[in-house]
Parts: sequence; C-alpha cells; structure tokens
Amino acid sequence: MFIIGELINGMYANIGAAIKEHNKKEVQRCALEQIACGADALDVNCGPASKQPLTDMPWLVKTIQEVTDKPLCLDSSNNKVIEEGLKVSKNKTIINSTTADQEKLDLLIPLAKQYNSKLIGIAINTKGIPQNKDQRLELAATIITACQQHGFAIEDLYLDPIVLPVNVAQAQIKDILESIHEFQIISEPSPKTIIGLSNISQGTHVRSLINRTFLTMAVAYGLNSAILDPKDKELMDALITSELILNKNIYCNSFLDAYRRK
Amino acid sequence: MFIIGELINGMYANIGAAIKEHNKKEVQRCALEQIACGADALDVNCGPASKQPLTDMPWLVKTIQEVTDKPLCLDSSNNKVIEEGLKVSKNKTIINSTTADQEKLDLLIPLAKQYNSKLIGIAINTKGIPQNKDQRLELAATIITACQQHGFAIEDLYLDPIVLPVNVAQAQIKDILESIHEFQIISEPSPKTIIGLSNISQGTHVRSLINRTFLTMAVAYGLNSAILDPKDKELMDALITSELILNKNIYCNSFLDAYRRK
Repeated sequence: MFIIGELINGMYANIGAAIKEHNKKEVQRCALEQIACGADALDVNCGPASKQPLTDMPWLVKTIQEVTDKPLCLDSSNNKVIEEGLKVSKNKTIINSTTADQEKLDLLIPLAKQYNSKLIGIAINTKGIPQNKDQRLELAATIITACQQHGFAIEDLYLDPIVLPVNVAQAQIKDILESIHEFQIISEPSPKTIIGLSNISQGTHVRSLINRTFLTMAVAYGLNSAILDPKDKELMDALITSELILNKNIYCNSFLDAYRRK
Repeated sequence: MFIIGELINGMYANIGAAIKEHNKKEVQRCALEQIACGADALDVNCGPASKQPLTDMPWLVKTIQEVTDKPLCLDSSNNKVIEEGLKVSKNKTIINSTTADQEKLDLLIPLAKQYNSKLIGIAINTKGIPQNKDQRLELAATIITACQQHGFAIEDLYLDPIVLPVNVAQAQIKDILESIHEFQIISEPSPKTIIGLSNISQGTHVRSLINRTFLTMAVAYGLNSAILDPKDKELMDALITSELILNKNIYCNSFLDAYRRK
C-alpha cells in the first residue's frame, strides 16, 4: 500500500497558520511526523483560505523538501497552482488531480508527462458525482482513453472512484468498493487505484472506526494507495494487518513493529 | 450476520469446571452474557476433557434452555454426542459439523433432517486440509451434492472454508476469503457461509486485531455467519461497522448503540 499523508493541508488550523506566517518548522514537523508514522508520500494542499496559492504551493514544496526526499502529492483544483509546485519539485511527484472532463485531461496529462509526474484521475466530471459503479467505470474509461491518446503510461495513473460519506450515500458504498476492483481490470497494464479515505466518515460520530473498517474492506478489494492520516495508530494497525492477511508482508510475532521499522 | 457465540466450550476453564461440577449458574451466566453482547445463537461444546460427553451435552442444552430460546449450535466431532443434544433441544438447532467425507455426510444429513436442524459442512475430509481454493470448492461441492441427494434444503446448509492460522498458512488466507465468495455461487439457491473466526489468530500475539481485520474482510466477501467471541467489543464494533458500510443496517449517528439495542 502506497500511503499518502493528508495532514499538510491549509484547511487544518496549524498548517493554515504556518502558511500565513511562513512558519517552516511547523510544516516540516508535520512532514516528518507523518513519515515516522509510515507515510510513503505527502499530500500538499494550500487549503481553501490561501489567498496566494501560486506562491504558497512552491513555498510548501521547498519547505518540505528541506527535510525529506519523499514524493509529494500536489493537491489543487487549479492547474496553475499545481504547475508552480511542479516547477520546484526535486523528486517524482503525484498530481492530485484531474477529473474526467476532456478539457482538464488535455491540460493535466501533458503537464504530468512534461514533469515526469504520476497522476490521480477522479471518476467525476462537471455533470456531477457518479451514482453507481457503471457510471464510475465509464468515467474511468474516459480518463484511461485520454492517457492512452496522450501517450501517458497507465502504470503512473491512479484512479479514484470518489468516496462519499457513508451517512450521505450509504447505498453507494458497496459500488465504490466494487469499482476499486473493476478499475484494476479495465486495461492491461492496469492503472493503480487510490481513495481519499477520510471522505467516508465526514460528518459521522465515530470517524476513526469507520475509516479503518472501510480501508480494510478496500484493501480486500485490491486498493493500491490511500490518502489518509498516518498518525491514526489504529488505522495504521488495521492497514498493516490487512496486508498481512493478504500475504503482502511476511508474518512474524512482531509484524506491526517490523512494518513500522521498514 | 448471524453471530454464534463461542464461549460455552469445555476447553475454557470456567466452562470445563462448570460441566464437571454441574454448576448451572456459570453456564447460564455465560449464555446470557454472550446474548447481551449480540450473539444470535450459542455454540455448545463439551470440550476435549469431558469424560461423559453423551450426558454432558444434553445437560448443557437443558441448562442453557432454562434461560434462553436462542438457537444452539451443537458442536462435537462425535455424531452420538450431537444426537443426545438434539433429543433435548426445544428450538431449531445447528449441527456443528460434518466434514466432506461420505460416511459422515450419510450420518449427519439424515440426522439434521430428522431433527429439523441446520447443518455446518466443513471443507475438509480424511485426506486432510485443502491446500487451495479449488480443493475447497471441490469439497464444498461434495457436501452440496450429498445434501441434494438426501433432500436437505440448501438454505439450511452453512459451508465453512476452514480458516487456518495466519502464522501457519499465510499464503492460503486470500484463497479462504475467495472461497467465501465462491461458495455462495456454487448452487441456486445458495448455501450460507460460516467461519470459525478465532482460528485465524491461533498462536499470534495480537489476536483481537487479527480477528477483527479478517472478519471485516470476510464480510466484504459476503460472509453470512461467524462463530466468535461476542464479548470482544472491538470485534463487534468492526462487525457492526462492516455491515453499515455494506448498507445492511441504516446509518444513524448512534448506529453502534442502535445495533446493540435491536
């Protein structure tokens, strides 16, 4: 499982303030803490309150790169903000994200190619949120076709079925799990699959329990990557144990510690 | 999910002693406690140390029936012990279990029919433990064929893929999960599926975590029933949340409490 830490996001008070005050230490602390908890990459999002995302994004990227070489996942709905981040990124990045809209695909796929970046494609378009797994598959196929047309390597594509809160779209959650499976067999070679985990529990009262239960099920359906809070120890325990059960890490009595020391 | 409590088993010190001393109160306390925690039925096993299982089993059944009408799951490898339990059972029982051996099937299926009992069939025979999902499916097919030949309703059959400890048979666990799915499509109408959950974590150091992670995955694969420890609150939380995610219980903010009050 490729784990992307979600905590460097201006919507969180500490990061929002750190961006405003150009407080490098707080951002770097947050980066190192997530890596210590098991993050393989770090999501970077200026947040909705950022007034100058075109300069905040490269500042965040440079600040984080002073303390780690882990890949960064540049998270913005504005492709110009993403490009400013790409310009200063030293390592292979992940663009988060394109929708299945042709205009967006024609902008972001060439950008990903130009900067040798991976790309997250979300099964959504301007018509709205898909209502079932057939619609998700159709949107995924649109993204894959665009990648093929642009000559973008499908192995570098992460498809996101778009996770909805269980308290809002309970009847759709099984379809979302099945989409994770279907996305893997939509083309050869396979794209990877990814979810923004925390969406599942938005507005609920037992967020961590719902997050880790859904993640365990998603792993059973073959999920490759998730954007999540690696500081949630019970979530990480569930993830490590899920992968153990699927024989992805070798069993030893101290398998939880062994994974964390890897 | 049909939850069968596993705690009335002579291998546990309290129940072993209670059987020896004919201490009704301890057995009844254990029965009521499991039901309060969410058990829909109770497994009843005299345990390996029982010297007179032919009288211990009916004593246990009668003792439990004094305090509850919940179905009992009569658990013995000796069909005579099961029959002594059946003779005194007031409600529909579950026979736990037959193997896929013809001799055993020809004894236990007619017994289940005679007493209007459900039947657990385990995908194992005298040749040994199956080594992959194809062998599991073949053993399941043997059990189904025998049920059809004896005119036993497939809806009353629970197929068990036989769960092995993750520290012993790690490479087989994914096959076991996939068998849970395959068993449901082996015939129309479908048999039900069941697991003895605690086997997955035998000999490991974090039993509850492994149990609840595996159960969550098994629910994702369509599991209908499990024999487990309903007093493990984190396990029950994971189970309730798994079913919520699959839209089997309606979401409300207090869904955990709501399930437990049902």
